[in-house]
Amino acid sequence: MKCLRDRFGKSADKELINFVNSIDVDREMILEDIWGNEVHVLMLAKCKIIRREDAAKILKALRDLRSDFLSGEFSLSSELEDVHMNIENYVMKKVGREVAGRMHTARSRNDQVVLDIKLKLRNEILQIFNLLLRFEDVLLERAINSSNIVMPGYTHLQHAQPITLGLWFSAYATMLLRDMERLNSLYDRININPLGSCALAGTSFEIDREYTTRLLGFDSISENSLDSVASRDFIIETMSCLSILMSNLSRLAEDIILYSTSEFKFLEIPDEFATGSSVMPQKKNPDFAELIRARTGFVYGALFQILTVMKGIPIGYNRDLQEDRVMLWSSIRVVKNSLKILCKVIKRVEFNEERMLNLLHENFSTATELANYLVREKGINFRDAYSIVGEIVRKLSSKGSTFESKKLEEILREKGISAENIDDIISPEKCVLRSRSYGGTSPREVKKIVNRTKKKVSRFKRISEERRMRIENAMKLTRSEINRVMKSA
Amino acid sequence: MKCLRDRFGKSADKELINFVNSIDVDREMILEDIWGNEVHVLMLAKCKIIRREDAAKILKALRDLRSDFLSGEFSLSSELEDVHMNIENYVMKKVGREVAGRMHTARSRNDQVVLDIKLKLRNEILQIFNLLLRFEDVLLERAINSSNIVMPGYTHLQHAQPITLGLWFSAYATMLLRDMERLNSLYDRININPLGSCALAGTSFEIDREYTTRLLGFDSISENSLDSVASRDFIIETMSCLSILMSNLSRLAEDIILYSTSEFKFLEIPDEFATGSSVMPQKKNPDFAELIRARTGFVYGALFQILTVMKGIPIGYNRDLQEDRVMLWSSIRVVKNSLKILCKVIKRVEFNEERMLNLLHENFSTATELANYLVREKGINFRDAYSIVGEIVRKLSSKGSTFESKKLEEILREKGISAENIDDIISPEKCVLRSRSYGGTSPREVKKIVNRTKKKVSRFKRISEERRMRIENAMKLTRSEINRVMKSA
Amino acid sequence: MKCLRDRFGKSADKELINFVNSIDVDREMILEDIWGNEVHVLMLAKCKIIRREDAAKILKALRDLRSDFLSGEFSLSSELEDVHMNIENYVMKKVGREVAGRMHTARSRNDQVVLDIKLKLRNEILQIFNLLLRFEDVLLERAINSSNIVMPGYTHLQHAQPITLGLWFSAYATMLLRDMERLNSLYDRININPLGSCALAGTSFEIDREYTTRLLGFDSISENSLDSVASRDFIIETMSCLSILMSNLSRLAEDIILYSTSEFKFLEIPDEFATGSSVMPQKKNPDFAELIRARTGFVYGALFQILTVMKGIPIGYNRDLQEDRVMLWSSIRVVKNSLKILCKVIKRVEFNEERMLNLLHENFSTATELANYLVREKGINFRDAYSIVGEIVRKLSSKGSTFESKKLEEILREKGISAENIDDIISPEKCVLRSRSYGGTSPREVKKIVNRTKKKVSRFKRISEERRMRIENAMKLTRSEINRVMKSA
Amino acid sequence: MKCLRDRFGKSADKELINFVNSIDVDREMILEDIWGNEVHVLMLAKCKIIRREDAAKILKALRDLRSDFLSGEFSLSSELEDVHMNIENYVMKKVGREVAGRMHTARSRNDQVVLDIKLKLRNEILQIFNLLLRFEDVLLERAINSSNIVMPGYTHLQHAQPITLGLWFSAYATMLLRDMERLNSLYDRININPLGSCALAGTSFEIDREYTTRLLGFDSISENSLDSVASRDFIIETMSCLSILMSNLSRLAEDIILYSTSEFKFLEIPDEFATGSSVMPQKKNPDFAELIRARTGFVYGALFQILTVMKGIPIGYNRDLQEDRVMLWSSIRVVKNSLKILCKVIKRVEFNEERMLNLLHENFSTATELANYLVREKGINFRDAYSIVGEIVRKLSSKGSTFESKKLEEILREKGISAENIDDIISPEKCVLRSRSYGGTSPREVKKIVNRTKKKVSRFKRISEERRMRIENAMKLTRSEINRVMKSA
Repeated sequence: MKCLRDRFGKSADKELINFVNSIDVDREMILEDIWGNEVHVLMLAKCKIIRREDAAKILKALRDLRSDFLSGEFSLSSELEDVHMNIENYVMKKVGREVAGRMHTARSRNDQVVLDIKLKLRNEILQIFNLLLRFEDVLLERAINSSNIVMPGYTHLQHAQPITLGLWFSAYATMLLRDMERLNSLYDRININPLGSCALAGTSFEIDREYTTRLLGFDSISENSLDSVASRDFIIETMSCLSILMSNLSRLAEDIILYSTSEFKFLEIPDEFATGSSVMPQKKNPDFAELIRARTGFVYGALFQILTVMKGIPIGYNRDLQEDRVMLWSSIRVVKNSLKILCKVIKRVEFNEERMLNLLHENFSTATELANYLVREKGINFRDAYSIVGEIVRKLSSKGSTFESKKLEEILREKGISAENIDDIISPEKCVLRSRSYGGTSPREVKKIVNRTKKKVSRFKRISEERRMRIENAMKLTRSEINRVMKSA
Repeated sequence: MKCLRDRFGKSADKELINFVNSIDVDREMILEDIWGNEVHVLMLAKCKIIRREDAAKILKALRDLRSDFLSGEFSLSSELEDVHMNIENYVMKKVGREVAGRMHTARSRNDQVVLDIKLKLRNEILQIFNLLLRFEDVLLERAINSSNIVMPGYTHLQHAQPITLGLWFSAYATMLLRDMERLNSLYDRININPLGSCALAGTSFEIDREYTTRLLGFDSISENSLDSVASRDFIIETMSCLSILMSNLSRLAEDIILYSTSEFKFLEIPDEFATGSSVMPQKKNPDFAELIRARTGFVYGALFQILTVMKGIPIGYNRDLQEDRVMLWSSIRVVKNSLKILCKVIKRVEFNEERMLNLLHENFSTATELANYLVREKGINFRDAYSIVGEIVRKLSSKGSTFESKKLEEILREKGISAENIDDIISPEKCVLRSRSYGGTSPREVKKIVNRTKKKVSRFKRISEERRMRIENAMKLTRSEINRVMKSA
Repeated sequence: MKCLRDRFGKSADKELINFVNSIDVDREMILEDIWGNEVHVLMLAKCKIIRREDAAKILKALRDLRSDFLSGEFSLSSELEDVHMNIENYVMKKVGREVAGRMHTARSRNDQVVLDIKLKLRNEILQIFNLLLRFEDVLLERAINSSNIVMPGYTHLQHAQPITLGLWFSAYATMLLRDMERLNSLYDRININPLGSCALAGTSFEIDREYTTRLLGFDSISENSLDSVASRDFIIETMSCLSILMSNLSRLAEDIILYSTSEFKFLEIPDEFATGSSVMPQKKNPDFAELIRARTGFVYGALFQILTVMKGIPIGYNRDLQEDRVMLWSSIRVVKNSLKILCKVIKRVEFNEERMLNLLHENFSTATELANYLVREKGINFRDAYSIVGEIVRKLSSKGSTFESKKLEEILREKGISAENIDDIISPEKCVLRSRSYGGTSPREVKKIVNRTKKKVSRFKRISEERRMRIENAMKLTRSEINRVMKSA
Repeated sequence: MKCLRDRFGKSADKELINFVNSIDVDREMILEDIWGNEVHVLMLAKCKIIRREDAAKILKALRDLRSDFLSGEFSLSSELEDVHMNIENYVMKKVGREVAGRMHTARSRNDQVVLDIKLKLRNEILQIFNLLLRFEDVLLERAINSSNIVMPGYTHLQHAQPITLGLWFSAYATMLLRDMERLNSLYDRININPLGSCALAGTSFEIDREYTTRLLGFDSISENSLDSVASRDFIIETMSCLSILMSNLSRLAEDIILYSTSEFKFLEIPDEFATGSSVMPQKKNPDFAELIRARTGFVYGALFQILTVMKGIPIGYNRDLQEDRVMLWSSIRVVKNSLKILCKVIKRVEFNEERMLNLLHENFSTATELANYLVREKGINFRDAYSIVGEIVRKLSSKGSTFESKKLEEILREKGISAENIDDIISPEKCVLRSRSYGGTSPREVKKIVNRTKKKVSRFKRISEERRMRIENAMKLTRSEINRVMKSA
């Protein structure tokens, strides 16, 4: 068959063959291409575009191909340009050109390749979604269990106010929930059937796109044949969602790297997740977190790669579109692996409560609360209260001292402010108890955050399960249609 | 007040002041900051955190500020670091420190700035959404009116098959509808109230976040105070959506540039949208389209800017976040202006139907349909049909000929295939009539595409109108609450 | 004159005028455009393409324009599309169309705009270069003065080995020297005269490009007219160089942010470079460093912007190229301001030597040296030495202990290794003295590094001065040529 | 040896091992790592840090390893984390821990990995450089042979002025020469020896870095040990250079795509470089050019990947740096393959001279020259001449006519301008002969451009050859040193 060159006077240049083939990026979509072929052939038979006997033969060959592939006996040849030609060629060898030559009726590689990508991609998105669901469970569990552990909250990486470790865990849970929302709505834009758009114009054969939509488990049919083969915004959107997700994970990674330094000492990476040095025997490195931080760059790069590809190319299928997958699957692997390892580490990592509490006592972390106290109890306006406390901090820190109730009461008294029971105000532990505004850091509020988040997570679990079932049922339906055709042929 | 330096021994270095101030990026959010201030003050009064009389005074000052700003009498000073300090300072001058100093109770610039951005951004997103709605109307109108005009359909920028101009117009309508879907779901993630998250931990004052949510027209309250001030994924998502939108527009721009060359001659840019040369008197250039193509790069750059900013910074507010707006408003302007001008041009541009049809006759554009005919009518399998036609094309093109029914019938007869009425098959006009698969290029299908798309557009119009109303009502409610407080004080 | 529309039937759409004009990005190149005009007119007169009297009149008008601009009386109108048309229009008003209409002979805006950018850009590159030279002086001065201060050296943000603060300072000096090398070789690719390339093909007028090259202070003449107006790789290269530079500065910023946390406490930001919080009175934030880190994203974004613009556009001038400046000048400002502020801070910031030394004693930082000792003195192979020390560290750290000579000698003795004078080995201060390999951390080596770097810096100072002089002389020469023409006319 | 975990209580998590290992990116540097090991061991022996007999054993094992690798018997195990540990492990198995354990004395993986990358990268850069040299030869050869073939020159993709095909070819030659200049100066920053920097601080062993520099063919020694292991700007610079190069190639690709459409018909892709369609038998697609255009995105993405990685990480080696290679080698492959195929196609592609000339006659391409004529011969100022010609074009084009000497002379006469011999002026062929300004499109100037460019190319050929020789000699020297040690042991 040698790659569709009947119209040419010369065979293709060797270097050209290597340059244009998409084998490397197609390798991961063989099973999807087989499924797509099966459904297409079933439809052709149903619509009487090909004969049932021919369909049965092709379906038999495709079944063989699947098991050959799974057993490692079938692999793609770069001579045959892409996965589609490889598969057509396999079937041709099995059932002859006269029958196999009918497979590609009312179809083009242009709709076929989008089909394959979508079948594969929706699975991958579901997997990432499920990893996120699992990670949410871990984060929320840890949040609830640490809702009353106190730690320094940072702004500008300087001590800002005391927060609870529960707030920190649940912040990431809240953040990642938005990533799930994005993936959830992306899924709707992926799960649309492009098959039947053909090269760009649809076809004059009387095909049945509703049938293929049902058999492939899609939610709907793509609206416009030209757009359907020419657009890749669902891939850019995928890379955007993953880039945002990685940017979130990179921050978690950064927190872990910082918190595990000997300067912070908030946590120690569990031995089984730490890494050594080739030359410094004492080292215990958080390599996994550094790699998550760094691999964020890989996913960003992938987003940029596809954005650049799509810039300014004319409508219609252009070979440029082949590059849509070149970083897609590897980016997905980066995301999945990052989630898996973070999930494990976050589950096990232990925090040094004593260290975190000690730090809070050293660094004026309750200064804001002291100002609030002056406002609330002493009727001072906030700006004056802020100035008073600011001045106190300046004085104390120049002497190397820190907040102490006695000293504070004295200083305030000098300013004509009688302050009592200041102990409570400047105690980090007490301080967090009082931050009871909606979404605030108090244990009570953290528990509410966790509960509300859990509900949203539950809803997503249901949606994810429904999607999985729909795909599974579509596969079963395909199988049963194949059996029906093969029996009746 | 001079910028919160009570804790410092020295005043700020001049260069530092210029380096860190955010006046340039804050300038566009003054009205939003005023609204946010009003609502915050109303809430403080409602919750009895400040006295009603004080609230009334501050509200009066804020009202003055708004009119000073609108009349051009108020402008931001870079000495005062940002919009928030500028406004607090204005109020302070009007009502004195004792009263104005109470404004910033139970709040931080950290939640204030996210609030401002969200108030502004949701408006901008609505505007882009509405421009897209208007553009959809134009595209769909043109699609319906050109559903039977024939033009070359391209793949690889080579003639592929004849399509209808209606399919081309509706392809862009379908494409941009997905952009609207993305913006629609983004809006939900923007329209969440961050006010009350304070610096990162919430507050010990008994604030009422539901009240501010209602007065500011938000759909819900942000869940986690730490996440609420530390995250900017809604901005990255905005830039992602706009980048995808621009990548789509860049393709439309490219089509326009190509179609208006003297080589294609499909269309001529209307004189009022064309541009001349300083030295070549004959030139008529599609500059606007080139600029849309190029400015895609600006929006991509903005996406990358914010992705880079967010990579690997620790959780909590970091000053890095100030850079979240540095390209946001200008990117939005690029998108809005691109949509406006495209909408106008697409409405008016005329296509050269004769030229498009002529080209179709020269370039074997119906070769696929000829192969389909051999499959359908002559029972030949597609691969053989493909080979037969490929060979014919090779022969004809080497002689400089093209498809002609007589010649074709003769060639086919030599191959033992009796072909009649071939005229119909190789006529581009007839060919498109037959592409009647769902989403195909036939006038009938194009009309269906347009109708289905119109329904989706109508739904979006409803949603957009509801959102506009919600914001308007919130503004009215704020106004009436202000009046109530001012009267009763 | 209204913008070159003699060939059009209709005047330009208002929105189009706003959409396509480049006033915003041209504003910064007015003086360059005037100089370019002067030199072009001088050349036209010299080559007798225009009359000397006409030249004199135009030159007079251009002189007026310069002073009008400098005194704020002249500003660009967006109606006139760009800086070139604005200036031609000004001259026309002054000397009439009959004379002013001769300015644009043998020229095009296509070569004119590249000329302006190059004249401006080479100045900016020189300025950045000089800021780097100044920063080098500061870094090397600090390096030499801290060549014997000991601090923890990090890998993976974990204590690795003791280093000298001098090594840290000189590392940045070495790093930035490469940035200077890049800018230096970039300058050669900028400083090439494009004037005379005209629209794309050169001209049939007998112009003298060597004369304009001399008068504009260029090093050479652009080789190919088509390439000359169509290429912008010198701008991409500029953005690449600045991106790399910013990536280096972002690391210095990160070090400063980390070192100024209360956890590290290596340094305290001088008060005049620190920033406060609106609500937390105790805060002292390293905002400037966070902004440098974040603005790295702006420069990266600018690089991506121009890369996207240039992707896949056909050769020749396309309006896309107008977007070459859209982030160029602002990126340069970011870089210059970042360098200025870093230079000031680095000059003044004080390090806490005691704190740094204490940390070194707590964290096994000399473990590698201990292993080296076992290799060197006890003949143990490195891998075994590494294992022995690794095991020791594990034991000690599980007990919460650290290195102590007595204890160590005991443990080693148990392993059959007689170790004496271990004190020296595990002393961080002694340890750094021994790292005397070329480029190593010992004070002796740091001094050598500084000396060698100083030599390279001196060479760059010379080059920079020569370039400045060449430009200055070219300006003088232009001035004298103008005077000559004006006198003789 | 199992990966340096003596200090840990637990073995590494399986998933961690997979997550952190760098086998995939290290695979391509095995030979470089072996060479680096050999030289390091030779140096250790020379400096008497290890015994000559031990060195000889290790060198023997490394020699075996090289042949095992070349014969396919050795492959990397991901259990052993990276290439360095794999190789140490191999040697350990061959010569035992006691001897092999000495290899890693006075070294760290941190300097080792930079060494490997540099050794590999300089070779790759040389290869790209040589491909560019070959491509220059082809472009210049074609330029000289087509210096008098006339074609439309475009701006805004509209006909601007007639140019020669020679100018077009030589424009790309000039452009790519700058890419070579960049690569040339990049090479200097790559070819610096990092070995001996160890983990970050140098070492207390008395090593000889000059000796390793000589044996590895480096030009100099890295200055600062900390910078040396922590910096990757040479990789960012590589990706910048390649991105700019690809942006240039993407424009050539775009030109080829446009010129091969049936609308332009300037050239036909040679059959052996064209590609077919799976469903449209007539298609002849320029896939290779589309892929070059698209793969520009891959290289841009790679640039962004590494820029993101390096943003804001603290100085010192961080595991993030492992990601420096993740797209490096594949990007280089993209560039090399693109150059190879373009070189072949450009060598063979034929242009349709008749078609190009015909187009020039239809589209007023000599309008500028006509205006120039009015200036030169009739003393009219350029702006008036421009207006006159603009008006003529408007009239003619509204009637569907084009330039014709008779008609033109008549119109001009009506305007009181006696124009004769206008034929010459509006002839595209004559027109290009007159563009004789430096760098202009006339055959004479194109030949000069080609000659000047050839000189620069020759210089680069010499430089490239010298570099190749230097590396080869270094390899020989290493070989002879190894023999010496092995014999004497």
